[in-house]
Amino acid sequence: MATGIWLIGARGSVAVTGLVGAAALRAGLAEPLGCVTELPELRSPALPALADLVFGGHDVADTPLVKKAESLVAAGVLPAGITAALGDELAAAERELRPVPVAGTQADTARLIAADIEDFRRRHDLERVVVVNVASTEPAVAPHPGHTDPASLAEALASTDTVLPASSLNAYAAFTAGCPFVDFTPSTGTRLPALAELALQAGVPYAGNDGKTGETLVKSVLAPMFAMRHLRVRTWSGTNLLGGGDGATLADPAANAAKTASKQRVLSETLGYRPEGTSLIQYVDDIGDFKTAWDLITFSGFLGTTMRMDFTWHGCDSALAAPLVLDLARLTAAAHAAGRSGPLTELAFFFKDPLGDVPHALHEQWAALTGFVRGLSDV
Amino acid sequence: MATGIWLIGARGSVAVTGLVGAAALRAGLAEPLGCVTELPELRSPALPALADLVFGGHDVADTPLVKKAESLVAAGVLPAGITAALGDELAAAERELRPVPVAGTQADTARLIAADIEDFRRRHDLERVVVVNVASTEPAVAPHPGHTDPASLAEALASTDTVLPASSLNAYAAFTAGCPFVDFTPSTGTRLPALAELALQAGVPYAGNDGKTGETLVKSVLAPMFAMRHLRVRTWSGTNLLGGGDGATLADPAANAAKTASKQRVLSETLGYRPEGTSLIQYVDDIGDFKTAWDLITFSGFLGTTMRMDFTWHGCDSALAAPLVLDLARLTAAAHAAGRSGPLTELAFFFKDPLGDVPHALHEQWAALTGFVRGLSDV
Amino acid sequence: MATGIWLIGARGSVAVTGLVGAAALRAGLAEPLGCVTELPELRSPALPALADLVFGGHDVADTPLVKKAESLVAAGVLPAGITAALGDELAAAERELRPVPVAGTQADTARLIAADIEDFRRRHDLERVVVVNVASTEPAVAPHPGHTDPASLAEALASTDTVLPASSLNAYAAFTAGCPFVDFTPSTGTRLPALAELALQAGVPYAGNDGKTGETLVKSVLAPMFAMRHLRVRTWSGTNLLGGGDGATLADPAANAAKTASKQRVLSETLGYRPEGTSLIQYVDDIGDFKTAWDLITFSGFLGTTMRMDFTWHGCDSALAAPLVLDLARLTAAAHAAGRSGPLTELAFFFKDPLGDVPHALHEQWAALTGFVRGLSDV
Amino acid sequence: MATGIWLIGARGSVAVTGLVGAAALRAGLAEPLGCVTELPELRSPALPALADLVFGGHDVADTPLVKKAESLVAAGVLPAGITAALGDELAAAERELRPVPVAGTQADTARLIAADIEDFRRRHDLERVVVVNVASTEPAVAPHPGHTDPASLAEALASTDTVLPASSLNAYAAFTAGCPFVDFTPSTGTRLPALAELALQAGVPYAGNDGKTGETLVKSVLAPMFAMRHLRVRTWSGTNLLGGGDGATLADPAANAAKTASKQRVLSETLGYRPEGTSLIQYVDDIGDFKTAWDLITFSGFLGTTMRMDFTWHGCDSALAAPLVLDLARLTAAAHAAGRSGPLTELAFFFKDPLGDVPHALHEQWAALTGFVRGLSDV
Repeated sequence: MATGIWLIGARGSVAVTGLVGAAALRAGLAEPLGCVTELPELRSPALPALADLVFGGHDVADTPLVKKAESLVAAGVLPAGITAALGDELAAAERELRPVPVAGTQADTARLIAADIEDFRRRHDLERVVVVNVASTEPAVAPHPGHTDPASLAEALASTDTVLPASSLNAYAAFTAGCPFVDFTPSTGTRLPALAELALQAGVPYAGNDGKTGETLVKSVLAPMFAMRHLRVRTWSGTNLLGGGDGATLADPAANAAKTASKQRVLSETLGYRPEGTSLIQYVDDIGDFKTAWDLITFSGFLGTTMRMDFTWHGCDSALAAPLVLDLARLTAAAHAAGRSGPLTELAFFFKDPLGDVPHALHEQWAALTGFVRGLSDV
Repeated sequence: MATGIWLIGARGSVAVTGLVGAAALRAGLAEPLGCVTELPELRSPALPALADLVFGGHDVADTPLVKKAESLVAAGVLPAGITAALGDELAAAERELRPVPVAGTQADTARLIAADIEDFRRRHDLERVVVVNVASTEPAVAPHPGHTDPASLAEALASTDTVLPASSLNAYAAFTAGCPFVDFTPSTGTRLPALAELALQAGVPYAGNDGKTGETLVKSVLAPMFAMRHLRVRTWSGTNLLGGGDGATLADPAANAAKTASKQRVLSETLGYRPEGTSLIQYVDDIGDFKTAWDLITFSGFLGTTMRMDFTWHGCDSALAAPLVLDLARLTAAAHAAGRSGPLTELAFFFKDPLGDVPHALHEQWAALTGFVRGLSDV
Repeated sequence: MATGIWLIGARGSVAVTGLVGAAALRAGLAEPLGCVTELPELRSPALPALADLVFGGHDVADTPLVKKAESLVAAGVLPAGITAALGDELAAAERELRPVPVAGTQADTARLIAADIEDFRRRHDLERVVVVNVASTEPAVAPHPGHTDPASLAEALASTDTVLPASSLNAYAAFTAGCPFVDFTPSTGTRLPALAELALQAGVPYAGNDGKTGETLVKSVLAPMFAMRHLRVRTWSGTNLLGGGDGATLADPAANAAKTASKQRVLSETLGYRPEGTSLIQYVDDIGDFKTAWDLITFSGFLGTTMRMDFTWHGCDSALAAPLVLDLARLTAAAHAAGRSGPLTELAFFFKDPLGDVPHALHEQWAALTGFVRGLSDV
Repeated sequence: MATGIWLIGARGSVAVTGLVGAAALRAGLAEPLGCVTELPELRSPALPALADLVFGGHDVADTPLVKKAESLVAAGVLPAGITAALGDELAAAERELRPVPVAGTQADTARLIAADIEDFRRRHDLERVVVVNVASTEPAVAPHPGHTDPASLAEALASTDTVLPASSLNAYAAFTAGCPFVDFTPSTGTRLPALAELALQAGVPYAGNDGKTGETLVKSVLAPMFAMRHLRVRTWSGTNLLGGGDGATLADPAANAAKTASKQRVLSETLGYRPEGTSLIQYVDDIGDFKTAWDLITFSGFLGTTMRMDFTWHGCDSALAAPLVLDLARLTAAAHAAGRSGPLTELAFFFKDPLGDVPHALHEQWAALTGFVRGLSDV
């Protein structure tokens, strides 16, 4: 039986890269580079096969999938000729996308979202559907009494208030539909007490937040290196130049603040102290999906000698994110199948701002991940 | 009781930085930054205290210690004012240094080396002496029948042949004097069958080779990062600009070849394949002890998208190496005390070209090292 | 006869580096590196000799010169041992520094400033005094009717209003004292109609604004390179990490905005269009006076092929600025001697935001500068 | 009337990019980015129009033009779809390419080369043909008595000796056919006394050597910047990572040595002294036509303070070189029309190793170039 991936932001760069890529892998047109669940250490019969993933989703935009895919080809994210080679698959995927429902109350909207997901599941006779948020980053949410517990939340959603941001409303809808949820963005998502409790009540697992695809990934190996060598990091300053949709959103200082905070968290968590410096985001439209980050690190060694390193990272965010979305959907589906509910803290490997009190050094996250997959296989 | 460190190349930058630094730490003038055995995870009563280390050694040069230390102050390796603050300690250390002995046969030379070490031990009533090679890098050694086993070696050394390069002759002398040996250079050192067997016969442990202080250290965390994320490294090319004594030696293509080969080994060992590219060394006298390395890495991700990162490392080689020399002496001394003999493969964390068939990913080497120290404490 | 330099911000890093450096050059302790008026192309009998410069000035701080100089030695800006070698000179200079005068109206304050300058001139029998602003950057000034012309200004200053920011009040005082004025900062300085006219009335020249010492200097040669090769610059984004007093001031968004605007001006002026991107300033206290800037440039060539370059600049701001302060004082003094009044647009070579409608390409500014010096010599 | 460009190495990356690009410009498919003769400062009726250039040439390879062009599309050098859009033009160009002639003596070979060029001229009724060498770099030539003067050369070529390397034999053939010659490579080309004299006898101009497209271009603006600011460059070290045909050739140490020497010449010529350091070339096949160069510069300023900058240049060599080939052909043709013969030293702007005793600072070369074009228009 197949597994569904329901994408929030299904016509965005990450979603379309993932969807096209999964079809290309199924068609044998590419190797599964970037998919960590295809590494020997993580391959497991407990995970749904890549070939058994079916895609659907919501988006506020209505750009046809093929058109978006062609723009990704032009930008160098997808290889030339891929839209022609996968014409049928893209047409089929197009039929599974729906506009974002709108209703009078958020409770009604959530019911419509859940209904779309359930239709999708029924249409394809899916074993389960994992809902994955890859929509644009939201500003931080304003506190609301409905955030406290499931009962208050249900009551508040029935009012005309805007209680939940979109990411959380989608998590709510997923949970009420019995679906696992993955938040690949820095948005609020499941991070409200009411939703955490709801997931446990519904018996569904969730994962997040904020996919770790570039500068923070590098930090999560360099910072432990300095720690293991007893070198004191004095300053760590970063600049991220990025364009595309995500860049424009993050140019909004409110969204930006959340993101840059989560980008430095890895330092204090792995070093045990907070070096001076911040990580900035500069929106440069022309740079598009190929982000360039530059980080300067100054550090002290023996007898206080000051030294420095810097790095630039020139990565394609969508090409780095999309295979992780496939990984997360497979892992979360398998966790659900194994009876797990609540936060999947073992998936910290994938996230800048992971759930739970977990290690931030990449190798420790890797150990947790491989243990998690072994645990699934043992079931 | 105190532990001795007998330095081969005792008037060189690394040795003098280590010796001055140890005195500064003992005098409370600095924190033990760069000393990994002072990290909470590695502190152990099984290790001799930093304050209980006594230094002696051989050198072909006769530059007074104080003068060398002052040149290191001028170069920014040692802090201003340190030679004045540690005048007595440096004078005491000066008295423990000896010229390199010369005799008719290598057997005789080895006996004189061993005698100097034994005098040092007796003079200070040392529990044991660890011999550490921090002399200049040698060219690769020519094969000789005496390298095969201890008996052939003893016989060959008694002839007028140059059987062993200096690094190996010092290891031989150390072993015959019952001393553990650490090779911090890429020279041959213990890496001959005859010496490996001799160490076992003598019941002494040894460690090496080639201290991992800069570019290779960074590689040993970045290469595993690419591997864990299933990103295919296409090319990895490096340039190392360095001056000072080591730089001049390495400008010799013969020495250079050995070093650059060991610098790329970490890639094939951690990635499972050998990406294109080499790591070059350029001698630039004016750059002195502050090495600058630049590495460019190109890699493929999802659907073959090509991406890149580069880094520059601006590190003070002596300041990075010296605390590791102290660490290695303490760890090797403790291993000897615990009855270990032969290669200490658990110390791969410290080396570019570690002994044995061991992991090259830094975090795996760290795990081996912490296990090793825990094992010592359990004795 | 000697020439005076009256420094606004006389106890700051740039001023003290300049003052100590001039003494060191006079004592033959260093070569005049960084002093462009000591290049063969610019040496001229029309300029006052380096040895004939006498320093005085105002500062709100009261840190003793020697103490400040020692902190600059510790930071690596000044060479070790220099304060001891120049003890008498520093003591003499200390006696010429005055606290910033305070009075009831800005007119009264200006009179006190002018009186201090005139005392200084008389005390040393100086031919002339050039007033140079090297104080911290101010926020942009609020418009005031007194800014329009000298008469309105005189009237306004006699009121209790704060009519002029400190940089402009100092320019006013300089002009009324018959002294040339140089603004090395991005502050308002002479850039008000009333002051421009006053300088003409007083028959004194002035120069500014904002010394070009690092990232912008590099831009002023790279941007013309792209233009001469008909390569279209698509994006030019910069990050400046700096500490020290200037960094703290510039962390204030108001001051920062003025500075970052002037940093991009060179691009539109030399390229003929404005590429996307901005230049940011990040305050990192620990980085101190050694600023690190990183710039990424993307550009299109033949048939639209996109390419990129990036650079890092690791420069000591005070060591780069101080010799230019000496140059500017000498050049401005010579211009005054030659009868010039008003803006010295030929000195654009030294400034990020030069006065007048002048070229921004460094080589064109160089041509203007060499022509200016030749003109002085011909007088 | 049209002007011919006869390309030596006509099926190589630079030639094909130039040929395809010229067709694309003629068809209005692209702007003339990278073509300096299309800048307002250099546009001149004295130059043949871009639309009036006709291409022919020799190559030892027989890869069809279209196939080569498609490989350049795949490599990102040419835009997608260009080969389809320019099918007829490429077919026409294909008909003008000839295999490299082979004969018993070099004199005979030269006659066959000249005959091919003359046929080309006649076929298209061309006003003149400029011969441009864009073939692979040759090793340095061995001295031969025939290099001294035209008479000795003619005699030597009639023997069975290999007197001239290919680049010089082509120059010889061009001169005997009355054609101007441009050497865009570091090969010997016209740099033999016999050929210099022959060009004067034949009344034809020539230009060279070694197109300046990347790292050296940047050096030619940065080095003057340091000079103008009286900053002493201590070390300048570079690494060039490149693949493609040129990279493979340059991996040959003999060719490499010539190239790296010419790459540092700009430093001594513009600084007045030779800083320490070299510029290396590393062949990395996978990097292809997009070269990455990294340069580290250390320099001293006021009171000896040491500072540093580094840059990386990620440029497409063919996309940078091809428009310059068009420029050079147009400029050289116009010079010929204006009656110039011998070395065109005013074209130093285009070359790493320019002919004559000329300035190496880019802005001085620019001034010479604009003067040259103005001179042509005045005729």
